[in-house]
Amino acid sequence: MYEQRRETTPSRHPERASFDEALIDAVLDEALVGHLAFVADNLPQVLPLLFVRLGRTLFVHGSTGAHFARMAARQKSLLVSFEVTLVDGLVLARSAFNHSANYRCVIAHGTARLVTDAERKAAVLDALLDKLVPGRRAEVRAPTADELRKTAVLELDLDEVGAKVRTGGPLDAEADLSLPVWAGVWPIERAFGSAQRSPDLAESIPEPAYLAR
Amino acid sequence: MYEQRRETTPSRHPERASFDEALIDAVLDEALVGHLAFVADNLPQVLPLLFVRLGRTLFVHGSTGAHFARMAARQKSLLVSFEVTLVDGLVLARSAFNHSANYRCVIAHGTARLVTDAERKAAVLDALLDKLVPGRRAEVRAPTADELRKTAVLELDLDEVGAKVRTGGPLDAEADLSLPVWAGVWPIERAFGSAQRSPDLAESIPEPAYLAR
Repeated sequence: MYEQRRETTPSRHPERASFDEALIDAVLDEALVGHLAFVADNLPQVLPLLFVRLGRTLFVHGSTGAHFARMAARQKSLLVSFEVTLVDGLVLARSAFNHSANYRCVIAHGTARLVTDAERKAAVLDALLDKLVPGRRAEVRAPTADELRKTAVLELDLDEVGAKVRTGGPLDAEADLSLPVWAGVWPIERAFGSAQRSPDLAESIPEPAYLAR
Repeated sequence: MYEQRRETTPSRHPERASFDEALIDAVLDEALVGHLAFVADNLPQVLPLLFVRLGRTLFVHGSTGAHFARMAARQKSLLVSFEVTLVDGLVLARSAFNHSANYRCVIAHGTARLVTDAERKAAVLDALLDKLVPGRRAEVRAPTADELRKTAVLELDLDEVGAKVRTGGPLDAEADLSLPVWAGVWPIERAFGSAQRSPDLAESIPEPAYLAR
């Protein structure tokens, strides 16, 4: 279990909150993109980033020229909020008001820091690629020292972290149950399509098995 | 075209920026969830919200008890950044470094305000439901005055807004092209599953045609 804190207790629907480590880790490991918020010149900023979790630490990466990376380099650290959401379905109720979505959301707060050790940075980037496409990292050219230098990796300890989860069908008011309208859940999934070969790829190179999932 | 501004010009890959109104509107209309960032007690906050676009205005909704809604009510307005991202595919290059994702991202900045007019609020919520499930709104029970009072709607003019888009295959270095590894794009799509009826739904009520998309 992650520790529950005031900052990670939702203001609404606290019964949907969870601090279960397996649940939180599963959301972070399934999602491809997270949303990094920070404050620049007193203004809120948010941007989408690929990320990977290793143990109780989250890592995002980007160009060293990116705004968040330059701020983190200048300040030595960056106060952030990081949000990851998987939408699992639309919840169709008998009333407009009780419509909802099923989702699994993780929000973490804290002080993010740049990873400066080249070896550690390389290990994080390897893990990121193997998260996105398991098995891929072993097949491709490894990063050069120059490529590593151009890549900023920011780490955030999963200390202030919590999940909010909605599952199940619509919660209709008793008086609405007899209305003659369909009610239930419309599931949403992420689907991978057929892999598209690069036009400049030699015909002798077959499609890897990991693209068939 | 939306007007290009300093705030909406990406620090990296400016060639991927777009201010094309049709493109931006299409992303906002396809995405279900957006990510609202704001600053509370000098700390960044970000949370996922369902939203709808009407013309050049974005609307998010939530409980009047939600943190962002209470802040907006207290301050009369809320400085926000709102981000929407659709991930269209993973881009598999011959080198780890050149891996990427194809995506369409829209980010808007500005001062959001609560919608206080009940009629306007109702119209926005109708539009939101019809965005999520086209045709649904006409079939369900309309919100009561009390339900409308419990719902906060925040509006943000699409003034400081821009898109960033990556499409196409991997951009490998010339020297990597002959490496014997598969390269290309692995498309990602959102898929709706088979609708799941509520157990308490009368058998005589058929599945609506709009759930078959």
